[in-house]
Amino acid sequence: MQITNETRIGFIGTGVMGLSMAGHLLKAGFPLAIHNRTRSRGEPLLRAGASWAESPARVAAQSSVVLTMVGFPSDVEQVYLGKDGLLAASGRGSMTIDLTTSSPRLAKRIHEEASRAGVQALDAPVSGGDIGAREARLAIMVGGDRDVFESARSLLGLMGSPSYMGPAGSGQHAKMVNQIAIASNMVGIGEAMAYAVRSGLDPRAVLACIEHGAAGSWALSHLAPKMLAGDYAPGFYVKHFVKDMKIAIESAEELGLDLPGLRLARALYGRLADSGGAELGTQGLFRLFSQG
Amino acid sequence: MQITNETRIGFIGTGVMGLSMAGHLLKAGFPLAIHNRTRSRGEPLLRAGASWAESPARVAAQSSVVLTMVGFPSDVEQVYLGKDGLLAASGRGSMTIDLTTSSPRLAKRIHEEASRAGVQALDAPVSGGDIGAREARLAIMVGGDRDVFESARSLLGLMGSPSYMGPAGSGQHAKMVNQIAIASNMVGIGEAMAYAVRSGLDPRAVLACIEHGAAGSWALSHLAPKMLAGDYAPGFYVKHFVKDMKIAIESAEELGLDLPGLRLARALYGRLADSGGAELGTQGLFRLFSQG
Repeated sequence: MQITNETRIGFIGTGVMGLSMAGHLLKAGFPLAIHNRTRSRGEPLLRAGASWAESPARVAAQSSVVLTMVGFPSDVEQVYLGKDGLLAASGRGSMTIDLTTSSPRLAKRIHEEASRAGVQALDAPVSGGDIGAREARLAIMVGGDRDVFESARSLLGLMGSPSYMGPAGSGQHAKMVNQIAIASNMVGIGEAMAYAVRSGLDPRAVLACIEHGAAGSWALSHLAPKMLAGDYAPGFYVKHFVKDMKIAIESAEELGLDLPGLRLARALYGRLADSGGAELGTQGLFRLFSQG
Repeated sequence: MQITNETRIGFIGTGVMGLSMAGHLLKAGFPLAIHNRTRSRGEPLLRAGASWAESPARVAAQSSVVLTMVGFPSDVEQVYLGKDGLLAASGRGSMTIDLTTSSPRLAKRIHEEASRAGVQALDAPVSGGDIGAREARLAIMVGGDRDVFESARSLLGLMGSPSYMGPAGSGQHAKMVNQIAIASNMVGIGEAMAYAVRSGLDPRAVLACIEHGAAGSWALSHLAPKMLAGDYAPGFYVKHFVKDMKIAIESAEELGLDLPGLRLARALYGRLADSGGAELGTQGLFRLFSQG
């Protein structure tokens, strides 16, 4: 399909990130239908000209391209394959794009069922957080058919930088690679900062000394200072990271891979979440080590 | 003391890094006496005008400032405190600078014994590897008395960028912070690349997509491509990293800190070393995961 500025777009899931992302599509002039579990969350979009649809199926019925940004893989499954779900109500030749970080296996299953119904499905999880969504600077990792990706490229470009990662599920796999790399790095940074404080160093002086060398990372420069300041306000929630790591562990197991660093990070973040830290930003891990 | 270009300098430990570092001092015009366990390693310096000394004590006897760059904490102990060691032979008012990555506790002990003998001791481990040593771009983390650091600053500046980290042992503590942050990040990168390959992605395309985001790090950009290319040539040896992590774990324990990410990294790198990987670069960890 060719997307023009008259193509009717649907957007399901208008949480913090979805709200920003759908807003970019609306600003670009697309007719937009939205649905969300809690309608009030979508109000800013409705005031700006979006229309409300009562269910995923109703979104599908009035849209040629439907984007989804929901919570857990179980939500994705419900929205796409459940009662009043997207796929059953989507017209032949229409397109779905799942922006949720979800299971690679589910992405493949949705692609299969979509294909059977003549619907083009992409998995397209994003990285970059609330700020990236607001500033349309998300990295968007896309799996699915190459020609479908090409059709969707300019639309996705309104929200960030899309990259084609391979067949269905590859977007989710790429996002897992991202989260696996981050997981152990966060453990290392939390431990390093705890050691810096406990050993009596000026941790900010140490940070300034090491951040441009071999220990340097985005997280060391951006999240370690927040750890030291006790600023645990979420850029990325612990509860979401725990969800992503659970998906990554399951997916790694399906691939026959044992990833002990990922398992350790998942256990530590799980302990943090269970002790009241679920709503903190991921830098909250520092709390676990500095109390130890 | 004030270091001038007539100050007699000693250098003990002319391995790969020491050779480069001592070379910078010689090029700057200082009279240089050297000692090394294996004399032949120091030949390039001797040919360039350095003089040979038969023992650490003999180096001390003819130098006002002695720098050391040896292997293990046990070597540091031997060189400073052993029979024919540095401290007993050092004149009052002379200075020692240990560039070895070694134990913070030993650094404090050396500082104490040095003080008693009227000798000024600094611990000044470096980061930046062979290349950093060759190009005089090392990060140098210095512990000891502040005024002694100020006296040594321009001399250390010939080898890289010195930063004052606090009282004796603080240089070693800062280096431990650096190694603790790197340790878990290497685990995460090895696991992430193993997942990328196993899931059928084009790992280079994924790398290009994620390296400038929240997963980005020096090691992801510089060592992950080597993992994927099977290039395990050492920038930093597995065997040296294992040594550093052992020191870090012992030091953390003395501080009452449990660092499970560091323990895991130490166990994994230990397994790699024991299975023939001791002489690989740290990116060799990938081998462990990709075989799994």
